[in-house]
Amino acid sequence: MTDDLVERHRALLERAIQAVRTRDYWTPFPESPKTYGDPAAAATEFQARLDSDFTLDQPGTDGTVGGERSPFGFDLGIRYPHAEVDTLLAAAQAGIPAWREAGPDLRAAVCLEILSRLNARTAEIAQAVMHTTGQGSAMALQAGGPHAQDRGLEAVAYAYAEMTRHPATARWEKPAGRGEPLRLDKTFHVVPRGVALVVGCNTFPTWNSYPGLFASLVTGNAVVVKPHPRAVLPLAITVAIAREVLAEAGFDANLVTLAAEAPGERLASVLAQRPEVRIVDFTGSTAYGEWLERNAPQAQVYTEKAGVNTVVVDSTADFAGMCRNLAFSLSLYSGQMCTTPQNLLVPRGGIETDEGHKSVEEVAGGIAAAIDGLLGDDARAVEVTGAIVNDDVLERVESAPSLGEVLLASRAPAHPRFPGAVVRTPVLLRLSADDEKVYGTEHFGPIAFVVATESTEDSLRIFRQTGRSRGAITAAVHSTDESVLAAAEDAAMDVGVALSVNLTGGVFVNQSAAYSDFHATGANPAANACLTDAAYVAGRFRIVQSRRPATV
Amino acid sequence: MTDDLVERHRALLERAIQAVRTRDYWTPFPESPKTYGDPAAAATEFQARLDSDFTLDQPGTDGTVGGERSPFGFDLGIRYPHAEVDTLLAAAQAGIPAWREAGPDLRAAVCLEILSRLNARTAEIAQAVMHTTGQGSAMALQAGGPHAQDRGLEAVAYAYAEMTRHPATARWEKPAGRGEPLRLDKTFHVVPRGVALVVGCNTFPTWNSYPGLFASLVTGNAVVVKPHPRAVLPLAITVAIAREVLAEAGFDANLVTLAAEAPGERLASVLAQRPEVRIVDFTGSTAYGEWLERNAPQAQVYTEKAGVNTVVVDSTADFAGMCRNLAFSLSLYSGQMCTTPQNLLVPRGGIETDEGHKSVEEVAGGIAAAIDGLLGDDARAVEVTGAIVNDDVLERVESAPSLGEVLLASRAPAHPRFPGAVVRTPVLLRLSADDEKVYGTEHFGPIAFVVATESTEDSLRIFRQTGRSRGAITAAVHSTDESVLAAAEDAAMDVGVALSVNLTGGVFVNQSAAYSDFHATGANPAANACLTDAAYVAGRFRIVQSRRPATV
Repeated sequence: MTDDLVERHRALLERAIQAVRTRDYWTPFPESPKTYGDPAAAATEFQARLDSDFTLDQPGTDGTVGGERSPFGFDLGIRYPHAEVDTLLAAAQAGIPAWREAGPDLRAAVCLEILSRLNARTAEIAQAVMHTTGQGSAMALQAGGPHAQDRGLEAVAYAYAEMTRHPATARWEKPAGRGEPLRLDKTFHVVPRGVALVVGCNTFPTWNSYPGLFASLVTGNAVVVKPHPRAVLPLAITVAIAREVLAEAGFDANLVTLAAEAPGERLASVLAQRPEVRIVDFTGSTAYGEWLERNAPQAQVYTEKAGVNTVVVDSTADFAGMCRNLAFSLSLYSGQMCTTPQNLLVPRGGIETDEGHKSVEEVAGGIAAAIDGLLGDDARAVEVTGAIVNDDVLERVESAPSLGEVLLASRAPAHPRFPGAVVRTPVLLRLSADDEKVYGTEHFGPIAFVVATESTEDSLRIFRQTGRSRGAITAAVHSTDESVLAAAEDAAMDVGVALSVNLTGGVFVNQSAAYSDFHATGANPAANACLTDAAYVAGRFRIVQSRRPATV
Repeated sequence: MTDDLVERHRALLERAIQAVRTRDYWTPFPESPKTYGDPAAAATEFQARLDSDFTLDQPGTDGTVGGERSPFGFDLGIRYPHAEVDTLLAAAQAGIPAWREAGPDLRAAVCLEILSRLNARTAEIAQAVMHTTGQGSAMALQAGGPHAQDRGLEAVAYAYAEMTRHPATARWEKPAGRGEPLRLDKTFHVVPRGVALVVGCNTFPTWNSYPGLFASLVTGNAVVVKPHPRAVLPLAITVAIAREVLAEAGFDANLVTLAAEAPGERLASVLAQRPEVRIVDFTGSTAYGEWLERNAPQAQVYTEKAGVNTVVVDSTADFAGMCRNLAFSLSLYSGQMCTTPQNLLVPRGGIETDEGHKSVEEVAGGIAAAIDGLLGDDARAVEVTGAIVNDDVLERVESAPSLGEVLLASRAPAHPRFPGAVVRTPVLLRLSADDEKVYGTEHFGPIAFVVATESTEDSLRIFRQTGRSRGAITAAVHSTDESVLAAAEDAAMDVGVALSVNLTGGVFVNQSAAYSDFHATGANPAANACLTDAAYVAGRFRIVQSRRPATV
């Protein structure tokens, strides 16, 4: 089957490599929900999973763990196998030599087969993502399904290109004066680092895990997936599919395993410090990400942590479009994206717009009105906001009014299908440039600040300051002045953050398109890595060569 | 001048990129000493440098430091400017924005101009390398000159390829059903990490420093060069040349600075922990390399440390050639290369050769005789061995007889030109497989062990064991049996070390050719990086993008 597999996926791999090189729009995984069948059927299937054991035939199982609760208001009651660490890691290592020997082409083909089966099961994974993260159904399907699969394929394409940038063998012939040249035949092996640990997050269990998972697997490593305890199911399904494909292709299924954790086990820390673990991918809090960066010196550690995302509002040729665009960015998934803006910096003298001069109050009012317009109808609102992922976020939004002057209060729309859903719309607060203590840290969730600054120059100073000290995953600017846009671009380079300019239509600062947008940069405290660049994949393998005198 | 510079070096850059991709033999820098003028003239010039100030017009100078002594028996007496750290780092940072803006093409051209001027001054640098490292004159010229320049160019080629693997701008156009497509114009900036620190070593100040220096510089960083206190001059000349070229090209000369240290200053540690320092390249001891890996979490740290290099002797079709080849490998620069073999593993039952069966004693005797043959004449011997780099190595070789049964004693040949030179030939000791405590650690210098093992299988077990636990930069095997060679190749992959097979002629395990051989791997404790692969360059910069709605 394996030769066949390489042939079957070759064109797709080549197209993906071309896409990451040209960085234009492309995807093999349609994002339209219609592609993935009847959502009602998927919901019924999902219900059948609840209150039962999730079966995974992997070694070292010493019991079951669980405890997920849907942000839409019910317990999942799914029990996952819990693995004994020594047995799990030994099993993970056992398959590495044969997987290494398989070489880049076959490994890439196996990874693409896993991705295509994940794509075929998008509707099922979407339900799992929705009811662990609180994402609305359309977003859970797109971000949890095809967009996550895109990010996995992108990582495979990058890693494949790096593994094959020089030939597997070479002849080296050095002139030696009048004598025979020195001739060596050289062989270059791609050798993996060992076991890779992927630590999943609560909000984007697939989208944020697939890049590390596939980058490590395609480069020959074994992967242990440690999901967030509140978002196990999407990764459990992923692991099951990967194991099925690996076994069918003749490899050890234990090259991909699930490490579901018991309460209080601190399993990520235990695994990350094991000598067998040579790669760690993590998405989550700054504190824990920094702990990993410092306490797993035997491993390459790739982190995406928290940041403070800024929008510099200087002027606009489309005030209504700007307000609508920002309103959607703030509302989507209740602001629970690492890419959601938090600080909207507006000069206290107001801004020039196509609708004339607008004061800070009018700018804030325009955005607030746009949020109201977007989320005014509860049934439509919940499709945009989804539900609040956990109690930490809920507490944060509920106590947010104490942080500043409330420009728009958070509402709790009723969910028409899930009466227990915890839904909140964004709260918008007014601050001044002096309130750095408040806006200078991340308030993860549907909380945003309109900060009145001295001037756009002052806004750029604040953007630089918070971005450099706290990090940022995204940044945006609105201006009709090219010199301001150039200054913002300089500031973005200094901060090391991707900049979106004058988005007033159907593209939002929160969105990051695989094959084209670099997600995070690794250049500021919000992340030490980028999804996906060469640095993200190149350290996951090493080249081990041999050379011998040529016989010809 | 800058456009001209790009044009002048374009063909060379493209050829170098081709070479690292195809990995065949190539160099633009001839290795024949004749290319570089009259050595006597260079020696006279060098004498004129002694006992004087080395002038470097760089900021923050608060005194001078010095204290180098030639291993050939005299003090250099050269005084280097000592820099105040705050001023130095501020000056290093100042030039970064303009250097970043210059872009990959111009930065690569400036680096190639620096390399070509280094090449033009090879004879002078060779003297500096010889009289700081103890390398013989021919080796100092080749390894310190063209081979080091090759490694610098290789790093530039790799980094340039990574910086330009996608376009600087792209149009992204996403279909939107029946509506107008979403269109964005994107710009991708290569953004450096900040200040890079290069910590030089005593034995190969240029060869081991140029890869990191040029990889960091071409990717837009500023570079602070902290030489080993006993090998300042080669890097001081290098820094002076880099500063001259940068200034001529209109950039801030302080993008490359020298940080010569006062006795006891621990300047590398001070610099490595500064927040401005975002990259560290280090060659030296395992203990200090590991300290850097753990204590500079704000920086990308690339280390080459100590290892235990093994030769597995199973059988040979050219016993005399094998012995001669190993004798040269052990003798070259008195074994003071990170690539010198230490443990020669021979089955205690002996080996099959073209000269019939040979016992362990006969194998050891053959190698010892070949060393005697190579080094029997003092005047010729010193050209191969050079001098002992420092007192640590001298003490180690002098106390070596206590480690095992002496098969060949170290001699102290008289140097015909430098009566004060500290010269030692290799000592060869016999050990058994049980003496792991001795052969399982590095004895840097002209000290090698013939270890009698149970069998070749046992030899491979020991090779795996020492390589994995202590690391290795090189490994070699001699066998006429393809199944043994395959097993050795598997073992080398498990250890993560480059393997040389059946070298009996004019190529030696110690040698590593730029553009073709990967030096170290990053896959075992001897180094966390490889000179040079994609992983070595890709993390030295980040990609920061901007995107805005397309106007067409």
